[in-house]
Amino acid sequence: MKVDGNDMRPIWFDNKTSTAKVIDQRKLPHKIEIVDLPTVDHVIMAIKEMLVRGAPLIGATGAFGVYTILFENRDNTNIKNNTDQCNNLIQSECKRLKNARPTAINLAWGVDRVMNHVLKEQGYDAKMNAALEEACFIVEEEAENCKNIGEHGASLIEEVSRKKQNLTDKTVNILTHCNAGWLATVEYGTATAPMYVAFDKGIDIHVWVDETRPLNQGARLTAWELGKHGIKHTVITDNAGGHIMQHGMVDLVIVGTDRTTRTGDVANKIGTYLKALAAKDNNIPFYVALPSSTFDWSIKDGLAEIPIEERDPDEIRYIQGLDINGKITSVLVPPEQSPAANHAFDVTPARLVTGFVTERGICKALESDILSLFPEQFSTQSRHL
Amino acid sequence: MKVDGNDMRPIWFDNKTSTAKVIDQRKLPHKIEIVDLPTVDHVIMAIKEMLVRGAPLIGATGAFGVYTILFENRDNTNIKNNTDQCNNLIQSECKRLKNARPTAINLAWGVDRVMNHVLKEQGYDAKMNAALEEACFIVEEEAENCKNIGEHGASLIEEVSRKKQNLTDKTVNILTHCNAGWLATVEYGTATAPMYVAFDKGIDIHVWVDETRPLNQGARLTAWELGKHGIKHTVITDNAGGHIMQHGMVDLVIVGTDRTTRTGDVANKIGTYLKALAAKDNNIPFYVALPSSTFDWSIKDGLAEIPIEERDPDEIRYIQGLDINGKITSVLVPPEQSPAANHAFDVTPARLVTGFVTERGICKALESDILSLFPEQFSTQSRHL
Repeated sequence: MKVDGNDMRPIWFDNKTSTAKVIDQRKLPHKIEIVDLPTVDHVIMAIKEMLVRGAPLIGATGAFGVYTILFENRDNTNIKNNTDQCNNLIQSECKRLKNARPTAINLAWGVDRVMNHVLKEQGYDAKMNAALEEACFIVEEEAENCKNIGEHGASLIEEVSRKKQNLTDKTVNILTHCNAGWLATVEYGTATAPMYVAFDKGIDIHVWVDETRPLNQGARLTAWELGKHGIKHTVITDNAGGHIMQHGMVDLVIVGTDRTTRTGDVANKIGTYLKALAAKDNNIPFYVALPSSTFDWSIKDGLAEIPIEERDPDEIRYIQGLDINGKITSVLVPPEQSPAANHAFDVTPARLVTGFVTERGICKALESDILSLFPEQFSTQSRHL
Repeated sequence: MKVDGNDMRPIWFDNKTSTAKVIDQRKLPHKIEIVDLPTVDHVIMAIKEMLVRGAPLIGATGAFGVYTILFENRDNTNIKNNTDQCNNLIQSECKRLKNARPTAINLAWGVDRVMNHVLKEQGYDAKMNAALEEACFIVEEEAENCKNIGEHGASLIEEVSRKKQNLTDKTVNILTHCNAGWLATVEYGTATAPMYVAFDKGIDIHVWVDETRPLNQGARLTAWELGKHGIKHTVITDNAGGHIMQHGMVDLVIVGTDRTTRTGDVANKIGTYLKALAAKDNNIPFYVALPSSTFDWSIKDGLAEIPIEERDPDEIRYIQGLDINGKITSVLVPPEQSPAANHAFDVTPARLVTGFVTERGICKALESDILSLFPEQFSTQSRHL
């Protein structure tokens, strides 16, 4: 997408250095800093420390991570000349990559997909080339999927807009939580894709941006993205969504997801469930936008089966921003002695979800409806049946 | 209550200076700073800028504000010698005091109560003495009310504790939002009063403290209060409450309120409504603790009739805390250009409230039940009937 007139993606392959590069999203919106990923440890750090975040982008980064295993060992003759040893290393390093964050299904999906391609290839260089090719293919596929999500989702916004044409205030008000924008994917985003497409078609929209504590991805990233694209938006606290829904100030909620069961239970950034409850209580449509890579076809009960990552409590205790001298600084908010708990995701039960916006179209949050869009998954067995 | 072994209240009258003094709560938990209130402008500033906050404490501060009108003009002979002019000044200054914050009913209640006493008195000194006497009386009455709220509310905690005696984990887990602690009242607090009383009786409790964006009264004030009293607590983001309720980690929710209708609709800090929805969805009791001064007997529809204060968006954009050098510093989180909206309260409909804990006992969130505790309000007419 455009940033100050220049094309930008949150991840890309740099031919000059033969490495993937990412934006360090921890510094946004105050600073655009680019980080090189020459080793698996760099990739794991980038995922763990959240230089990259967002389910599809984590998947793409994991995919490049597999390439990195081979790139990093390109001068290691033991590995290069022994296929078994090489494949063993690939498998153990892939396991390490997949453990970097437990909730996002896309990480395992991206890593496994590239790994399976690589293990089939004979010869070190063929493996390395296959890894790079597949990782780049995944990135382009994600971009294409997000564009399609945008086209399908924009129809929902257009529908609201049509209904508001006779009102004084014709603006379509959309609420979103966290950042499921292009920074979380490759282009367009998931939850934001319908907004970008609708805006580009000339529909009058305004986005309520939940700040999304503790890491403020809404206030820092979604607000930045939307602002750079010229979309009207307002940052609100995570607490405010219920109130503005009660007062008719929200037409539609669209969020992303880190993992969704085949039955439609949605794991997403902590706080999503509270917004879904408020949307239900106020008869406001609540949509979840996702590429099919975010479905976990093997599970049926989100609350019981999706592991919820607990992160460092200091992410809550310290808040980072720009100080009066223009320096990125952290400040401690609670008393030094008070403990904090940092559950990073929650699960919104399917009964609270109006529907899913996928690259293949829109469906209800019912297993039968989801599978009618993805019939090839009909026979995928639940791990726990 | 005790702070490092010393008795402390958030407001008191200092005989040496003949003025009320308050803790500047904006600096907590990192600094205890005392501010003198010699003039009406000081009182208004203290309320508006939130050096004092919390419905009962705002009421007590407003009560001292009426005394301040007379203290400030004690050398003004025109006012002192002309009863009509003096009463006019009192009335116009009281109006100014009451406008300092619109949502909390206690402010108008405290100001009006002292004003009515003062207007009846003849002679300047008699008026000034009556103002001081009534303000001090209100403070003691609030302390007494909170103690009684604590006694009644502790029975709810004891009941849960009894039910958990056969479990491995016997701790009663209570969630609270914002600060309805002694810092928001005079002693004990409202929502925290049952916790202090239960803890002092030896019941094993743990409190989940919502950080309460944007001003972080939970993380800054409730965590500090509870910690100083030795009560186990954990700070969480406002987003986390739904998740921990889904996973059986909350036995009881207790919050305060800034204004409650005679029908049981509850205006409280923004985000309260979302927690009430989650409590309902998970069959967790949701109680509101309040002194009767917080009931607005004249209204029946909280969503339509309670004005919701919109505060400065910079309260969201800038977050204050302690920097690495031990200095209280503000940092900017969203992009400089992104607008923010700061609705300070929301209204939780009575249908989501399990009951009220008042100084006279516990009742359901039904007009008939509330009035059975406060029968003297039976004939108070709704302003809007």
